[in-house]
Amino acid sequence: MQNKLKIINDPVHGFIKIPHEILFDIIEHPYFQRLRRIGQTGLLNLIFPGATHTRFHHALGAMHLMFTALETLKQKGVKISEEEEKGAMLAILMHDIGHGPFSHALESMLMDDWHHENLSLLLMNKLNEEFKGELSTAIEMFQGKYHRKFFNQLISSQLDVDRLDYLKRDSFFTGVSEGNINTQRIISMMNTCEEGELVIDAKGIYSIENFLTARMFMYWQVYYHKTSALAEFLLVKILERAKYLISEGVKLPATENLEYFLYRGKSMATDEDIERFTKLDDNDIIQAMKEWQNSGDFVLSYWCKCVIQRNLPKTVISSHPFNPEIIEEKIKNTNEFFGIDNGEELVHEIKRKLLPYNAEKQPIYLLQKNGKRTRLHESEDQLLSGLLVNKTTRHILMFPRELSR
Amino acid sequence: MQNKLKIINDPVHGFIKIPHEILFDIIEHPYFQRLRRIGQTGLLNLIFPGATHTRFHHALGAMHLMFTALETLKQKGVKISEEEEKGAMLAILMHDIGHGPFSHALESMLMDDWHHENLSLLLMNKLNEEFKGELSTAIEMFQGKYHRKFFNQLISSQLDVDRLDYLKRDSFFTGVSEGNINTQRIISMMNTCEEGELVIDAKGIYSIENFLTARMFMYWQVYYHKTSALAEFLLVKILERAKYLISEGVKLPATENLEYFLYRGKSMATDEDIERFTKLDDNDIIQAMKEWQNSGDFVLSYWCKCVIQRNLPKTVISSHPFNPEIIEEKIKNTNEFFGIDNGEELVHEIKRKLLPYNAEKQPIYLLQKNGKRTRLHESEDQLLSGLLVNKTTRHILMFPRELSR
Amino acid sequence: MQNKLKIINDPVHGFIKIPHEILFDIIEHPYFQRLRRIGQTGLLNLIFPGATHTRFHHALGAMHLMFTALETLKQKGVKISEEEEKGAMLAILMHDIGHGPFSHALESMLMDDWHHENLSLLLMNKLNEEFKGELSTAIEMFQGKYHRKFFNQLISSQLDVDRLDYLKRDSFFTGVSEGNINTQRIISMMNTCEEGELVIDAKGIYSIENFLTARMFMYWQVYYHKTSALAEFLLVKILERAKYLISEGVKLPATENLEYFLYRGKSMATDEDIERFTKLDDNDIIQAMKEWQNSGDFVLSYWCKCVIQRNLPKTVISSHPFNPEIIEEKIKNTNEFFGIDNGEELVHEIKRKLLPYNAEKQPIYLLQKNGKRTRLHESEDQLLSGLLVNKTTRHILMFPRELSR
Amino acid sequence: MQNKLKIINDPVHGFIKIPHEILFDIIEHPYFQRLRRIGQTGLLNLIFPGATHTRFHHALGAMHLMFTALETLKQKGVKISEEEEKGAMLAILMHDIGHGPFSHALESMLMDDWHHENLSLLLMNKLNEEFKGELSTAIEMFQGKYHRKFFNQLISSQLDVDRLDYLKRDSFFTGVSEGNINTQRIISMMNTCEEGELVIDAKGIYSIENFLTARMFMYWQVYYHKTSALAEFLLVKILERAKYLISEGVKLPATENLEYFLYRGKSMATDEDIERFTKLDDNDIIQAMKEWQNSGDFVLSYWCKCVIQRNLPKTVISSHPFNPEIIEEKIKNTNEFFGIDNGEELVHEIKRKLLPYNAEKQPIYLLQKNGKRTRLHESEDQLLSGLLVNKTTRHILMFPRELSR
Repeated sequence: MQNKLKIINDPVHGFIKIPHEILFDIIEHPYFQRLRRIGQTGLLNLIFPGATHTRFHHALGAMHLMFTALETLKQKGVKISEEEEKGAMLAILMHDIGHGPFSHALESMLMDDWHHENLSLLLMNKLNEEFKGELSTAIEMFQGKYHRKFFNQLISSQLDVDRLDYLKRDSFFTGVSEGNINTQRIISMMNTCEEGELVIDAKGIYSIENFLTARMFMYWQVYYHKTSALAEFLLVKILERAKYLISEGVKLPATENLEYFLYRGKSMATDEDIERFTKLDDNDIIQAMKEWQNSGDFVLSYWCKCVIQRNLPKTVISSHPFNPEIIEEKIKNTNEFFGIDNGEELVHEIKRKLLPYNAEKQPIYLLQKNGKRTRLHESEDQLLSGLLVNKTTRHILMFPRELSR
Repeated sequence: MQNKLKIINDPVHGFIKIPHEILFDIIEHPYFQRLRRIGQTGLLNLIFPGATHTRFHHALGAMHLMFTALETLKQKGVKISEEEEKGAMLAILMHDIGHGPFSHALESMLMDDWHHENLSLLLMNKLNEEFKGELSTAIEMFQGKYHRKFFNQLISSQLDVDRLDYLKRDSFFTGVSEGNINTQRIISMMNTCEEGELVIDAKGIYSIENFLTARMFMYWQVYYHKTSALAEFLLVKILERAKYLISEGVKLPATENLEYFLYRGKSMATDEDIERFTKLDDNDIIQAMKEWQNSGDFVLSYWCKCVIQRNLPKTVISSHPFNPEIIEEKIKNTNEFFGIDNGEELVHEIKRKLLPYNAEKQPIYLLQKNGKRTRLHESEDQLLSGLLVNKTTRHILMFPRELSR
Repeated sequence: MQNKLKIINDPVHGFIKIPHEILFDIIEHPYFQRLRRIGQTGLLNLIFPGATHTRFHHALGAMHLMFTALETLKQKGVKISEEEEKGAMLAILMHDIGHGPFSHALESMLMDDWHHENLSLLLMNKLNEEFKGELSTAIEMFQGKYHRKFFNQLISSQLDVDRLDYLKRDSFFTGVSEGNINTQRIISMMNTCEEGELVIDAKGIYSIENFLTARMFMYWQVYYHKTSALAEFLLVKILERAKYLISEGVKLPATENLEYFLYRGKSMATDEDIERFTKLDDNDIIQAMKEWQNSGDFVLSYWCKCVIQRNLPKTVISSHPFNPEIIEEKIKNTNEFFGIDNGEELVHEIKRKLLPYNAEKQPIYLLQKNGKRTRLHESEDQLLSGLLVNKTTRHILMFPRELSR
Repeated sequence: MQNKLKIINDPVHGFIKIPHEILFDIIEHPYFQRLRRIGQTGLLNLIFPGATHTRFHHALGAMHLMFTALETLKQKGVKISEEEEKGAMLAILMHDIGHGPFSHALESMLMDDWHHENLSLLLMNKLNEEFKGELSTAIEMFQGKYHRKFFNQLISSQLDVDRLDYLKRDSFFTGVSEGNINTQRIISMMNTCEEGELVIDAKGIYSIENFLTARMFMYWQVYYHKTSALAEFLLVKILERAKYLISEGVKLPATENLEYFLYRGKSMATDEDIERFTKLDDNDIIQAMKEWQNSGDFVLSYWCKCVIQRNLPKTVISSHPFNPEIIEEKIKNTNEFFGIDNGEELVHEIKRKLLPYNAEKQPIYLLQKNGKRTRLHESEDQLLSGLLVNKTTRHILMFPRELSR
């Protein structure tokens, strides 16, 4: 590893060390390098201009936190072999490797029934062949099949290093300080219990509750901000419209790989699908939107201009669903203003739901001084967790900006 | 301005306020929105993964610092009219509006004899027509024609708000703390002298010297880092090669607007040039490199793979020029390894020169307590400035990674 | 103001400007300089070693935030005269000027029925005489008698600049990041309503809720941390014991001014009281505790050694009151261990109650887009505020460290 | 170590872990707890109000950096035994244990010929007896007698963890960002060479040069700031005057231990000296100054009021010595103004010299790729170090504030 890069600058965590050569090999692989061209937060930079950070950087950050978490557990007496350390770091490094361009929403658009976690698994298996089985432990951990449960819980649970990194990183790059959690403190409170599961030392309870509220605020202030929700919605609408137009025989410019997916019907993933998918990134979509601004289809052209020139539709947010009559009127006005008859394409109600803490699925446990574990929201010391198990919903009405002038 | 965005989140400066409607109108203009798709530091994110920030964000940050600087001057008794405030803020907001995709280096490649400052001026003039002369003061200030010199010095000098913002911003996003200057402190030391020029209160001398050394360190650690220099060099080589191949009749895929510039010969800028230029951004170049990886031309394909897959050539840095014999041998080995005869295309010596402080051009003045001004590097209190007027040069030898295995 | 200090370095807010000469004169006054020797968080540095910051610094910080808040209101069209600006800044600058050494708890100990806000008012009035009435507006605002209510609300309410500064400052110096609120963001959301009261723009709701939860976490993690509660309790016990011993005729070393208060019986405040009080600071108490370590009284000596050598009693915290039998047993063991018969002096149950948000007293209002105001916890958009109106209690049992060995 | 404190909050480095029980025992010892009452930067908080941090906190921070440095060296293959790790951490933890109240300057005043490093050694030896030889390795390392030189170099050299901590910490608490060095980066570049000495990997050269310039700026902006120099000078003058008055038979109030030292003549350190010294801290001095404000001696009273009420003398700074005639005139004016005849006591020229980098004493070495080491300032890659070997001097003239009115 003499001439290989060993330390990576990270404004969020300081410096990221790469302690094993196999990690470095994965980072160098084109599958992983592609993540440099996939934004972590999609079109959020339209609202928070600093949010141009990438999945590549997030994956490195999560790997760094995994390393820190394992160091902490070792210091508390948990035995962790080198093979396990490598496995856990590889698993989190690759957890997003199957992520397609932009938001999760586009996944279903481009690839029907695939989910990015399935794609990640598919790509991990391909890499495992290439690296002669060196990734097997990582894949087991990723799938939750490894016998020591806490590894999977560090990768995917209500308090995994994925969440710890993305909250802190998104807070850093957006400048929304409400999400600036103290990852160092939270990790220092991690432990394992007799059952081999991940737990939090009881005295860390407030840090965990703070993490849960920080996450809730980040959702409502950033990810589900009405304009963020709008931008993501537009992106889906644009791809949907493009696929529809193409199915109608309209010719639309697109890069070769994007075109392939726009024409592709519903079917199982083939090797060619995978191959082409690993060459797709945000640039293909942005380039397409730039060109589709000139499309003959009013709706497609309108949406693309909205995004590329950041001339976004108006939005109103509410805790209650909108009255259908209000929506009808907006559509009527839209038709009148533009002289069109499909105004319902330009007026939509978008819904966002959040369950701040899911006490059912991979819940958080506290380790009491007596060695027993308690569920966080049932602990007598909790201040807020018991209240965070309720779902909140917001409704966003979008309509053409021109109507409000 | 009721429904317009008035505050923008900036992780670097906190919050950016937009105090005048005309500023908002310029920000909303497609010319300015294009800057969202032009990275501030080109391919530097290959070395510093956090450095994905954009010219858009930098321009807003510089505008914010201009506002702060003018507030400071007003508090010190300098009279500044609203027209002047608007002018100065507009000028710095638009100072990079003519920036093409990626590094300055590409400018000459795409547009021959144009420089991005000329292009900025050209676009400012077009906008001025559109906004019926509202930008006239800004343009005068930008060109240094406005009668009060300090406005131009805030826009473009050895200590302008452009530098203050980009140093702090690039330090923030790369994570290289050596460049984290205290802009608030430096600005609080700004003043004007009897001659109407920008000066620094004498007691701020160490903050200024710290700014100059921080800038020097940022150059050698970030901008002129051997791999940064390499990446920028490759980009130029790639476009050069593409233009050469096209001139030889080879057909290369490219977006319509990029193709236009690849085919364009040397000539004065036409209206079509300008129009097309304002639609070009980093995506056009990245998309081209992604596709040119499959080019039949070995050199073009090799360079593009280097960049897109981040499989970069090896580099060695030295304070002295490399011995020509060493270079010859590298070329010979390259030819042998790849079985080619134009190995000189793949082996290069890159040079970087830095003059940390140019005492001749728009130098920095200190305002003494007696009201007189002194040149910074001639002040009896200076600790380092007198030494920063000397140029330093570094030589970087690049050659195919395959040779070192 | 030529030779006067105009800018003060503050690691929390950056730089603090002092825009009016009268502010500077108050800062220079010995009454205010005394605050340099009064810690902001008492003995908390025994638990958080960074928390050595002073009331002096806090008062400056709060003054700075007041300035920022007034600037924001002006930008939103609220007319504020220079006299009002000065008044509000003076009022917050002096709000703690009557603070005695260490915690609020000591106030009652040293000065019976006085409260530090009364003392602040008393000292303000004395200063007002000295400055020939220049502080009259400030005093009116401080007392809530000024006709425009929002000034008093900025000084003392559920969301005043006092709280904004102390939360952020205490978070900064303790290193407990959970309290690192975004004061800049919160202030940018401030406004006034038709009734002339302080309100928050509705879109700032999450920042306010985040502020309330941050405050709650700071209480339980820092101010009411079991060891913090213990240290504060010990301090009160020490002074109580000293007064008791003195009333019994025991001679205890103390500085002249401290001695005065230890001997003083219950009575109205005289001029001499005030005069001596303004010369008392943390040093008098620490010096006394250092010397009382050698007292012949076991209890006094024991407590003082606990504090000065940081050899603190053991504590257990619980959401429920402790069983009296457990307490009895601890006392019995204490008597046995030390061979004393007043073990009940060394075993105590301490109680801490928190109402995170008091919706009754100076509540927070949101300004809706329609110009109407809503109470925060009744807003349909609130996520948590409705839940923060409930009180939480914790019980802390303390007993000699020697028992647990 | 079950019930012992294991993690300490540090706003500077995050969290400080205490990995060995003996470290914890030393921290708990009254000798070490005393450092909580000794400020790290003396009276600097008169100029930078945030600078109230303590030697206690600095010692913990330096211990933390030692731990990090040793971890880094281990990762680079340097073998370090647990005994060595403990030794190095103990040595740096205790390096300031012999520090007296306030500045180094007071040491000579109170204890004649002692230097705080000698006192530290004396106290370490006493502790070593108490801990039955467990500190022997630490003491060897502290004295430079341990056979592996790099341990001593980490404790005391041009680039030791003491300097790394105090620069970063003082920068943090003063708010002077120029000193905010990147300790994490610098430590990651540490290594050892064949000779067993501390070296820096060659590619870290700019971080080191940045550290040296940061240190230089901190000296001139903070430690040798003209008002800092003044405050430190006054402190010495006050103690000098007090000792003189006492030698003349004047009675001055002081705590018992301070009195002991004020009366003590020149002599070897006795056991009583040591015993009393370990009970002395900043409070004894501040309390004395508070009381000496009322002294009958004009000079003593004048100086004490200056400090306690922060009503400091005027200062002028210059790169050249002051003209004796100017000084004479100031003295004459002082005599006239106050109607005294010893005005020369109130007018002084203070001198501050700085050698930013001492290339002779424990210099910094770079480790070249070929395994050889080069002296930093002789490296061909250095940008500034060669220039930092020159001494700079500043002269500060102080005189009564009353003269300038």
